[in-house]
Amino acid sequence: MAKVITIEQRILKRNSEVAAENRHLFDGSGVFVVSLASSPGSGKTSLLEKALAQLKGEVAVAVIEGDVQTDNDARRIEALGVPVVQIVTNGTCHLDAQMVQGALQYVEFGKVELLFVENVGNLVCPASYDLGEHLRVVLSSTTEGEDKPLKYPAMFRRSDALVLNKVDLLPYLQYDLNEARTMALRVNPALEIFETSCTTGAGIGDFCRWIVNRMGETGAA
Amino acid sequence: MAKVITIEQRILKRNSEVAAENRHLFDGSGVFVVSLASSPGSGKTSLLEKALAQLKGEVAVAVIEGDVQTDNDARRIEALGVPVVQIVTNGTCHLDAQMVQGALQYVEFGKVELLFVENVGNLVCPASYDLGEHLRVVLSSTTEGEDKPLKYPAMFRRSDALVLNKVDLLPYLQYDLNEARTMALRVNPALEIFETSCTTGAGIGDFCRWIVNRMGETGAA
Repeated sequence: MAKVITIEQRILKRNSEVAAENRHLFDGSGVFVVSLASSPGSGKTSLLEKALAQLKGEVAVAVIEGDVQTDNDARRIEALGVPVVQIVTNGTCHLDAQMVQGALQYVEFGKVELLFVENVGNLVCPASYDLGEHLRVVLSSTTEGEDKPLKYPAMFRRSDALVLNKVDLLPYLQYDLNEARTMALRVNPALEIFETSCTTGAGIGDFCRWIVNRMGETGAA
Repeated sequence: MAKVITIEQRILKRNSEVAAENRHLFDGSGVFVVSLASSPGSGKTSLLEKALAQLKGEVAVAVIEGDVQTDNDARRIEALGVPVVQIVTNGTCHLDAQMVQGALQYVEFGKVELLFVENVGNLVCPASYDLGEHLRVVLSSTTEGEDKPLKYPAMFRRSDALVLNKVDLLPYLQYDLNEARTMALRVNPALEIFETSCTTGAGIGDFCRWIVNRMGETGAA
């Protein structure tokens, strides 16, 4: 087993090097990069659709989609008139920095200020792979229960923001928003928390303003 | 990268060997083993709670719980008076056959006829690891959307049954049960499909009867 750990560390070390290259390229080109991760079906693509509709008049946006199979998500983003690159990982359970680097050749750098990277639906493995992004956003939907930050702590610990999605379903669930916030902040007290619904549009504006403000702080916007 | 693939194949080969040992032990002891896998928050533990309440008067049941962190799930099962062993994987995103083998020393074989193994919440990696179980059940909740079988095909292809959970929320969702069934059967035409709600109890009886019938077919019950 020691050998395996060595290999894994080598993979993670190489990933970090490429992530640093990505970040260097992003910073040199004035591209602000936000990644999204969550369980399958928490609403990453839906959140993107709603956020892009608000953001695309304000900043030049593009998207990299990561999926194990299908280009369904890329087609949803394309329908909004936003440039999108689909990475199909073909079984791999997370994006890594090299996959993102490979996709960057299809991103028109002079024409993009804000780049979203949507990871494969997985609350475990993506936490270990820096992609070179500036902000990490994790989603958890109300239907999943309040305890996900305690059960999958790495992802919540390494994220800048938590989006509690599907709040429109709260009347029909045994789910306590305050308990969810408490559990998340216990794992990562620095988490910015948003409560959103992609059905009603609640909270999407706050989420977009936060991203634009963070872009401004780094001088990217 | 070639080296990594070799190591992974070696890991999977070793996993298959141990899974075969597990299965041999289960068969020799008359223990029927059912594994559960899904995204985080699809309701694996809730389904188990409801199923155990119905099954425990009928067959001798025990549970192995797999989680990245916490023993929350084991405590929920213990509250039902069902013997349970918790595996905390400490970051690993799936159970493997060795972890299950290690947990079996805490299972009282003479006193168990049906053993559930609840995997870590992850729709990708657990698909690759045979645990030695007799039946594989994958859950997908209605709140996750209909397209999960197409986006995470390996897990649905390698499962015997699909539980479409949280059907009580259908009136509040844009979700088409027929489309979900069609997509799942496109990936795996042999899937047995159950529609359940752990809130109302709908479909739990059918699911339990299917398991008991399958136990009977193998002579375990």
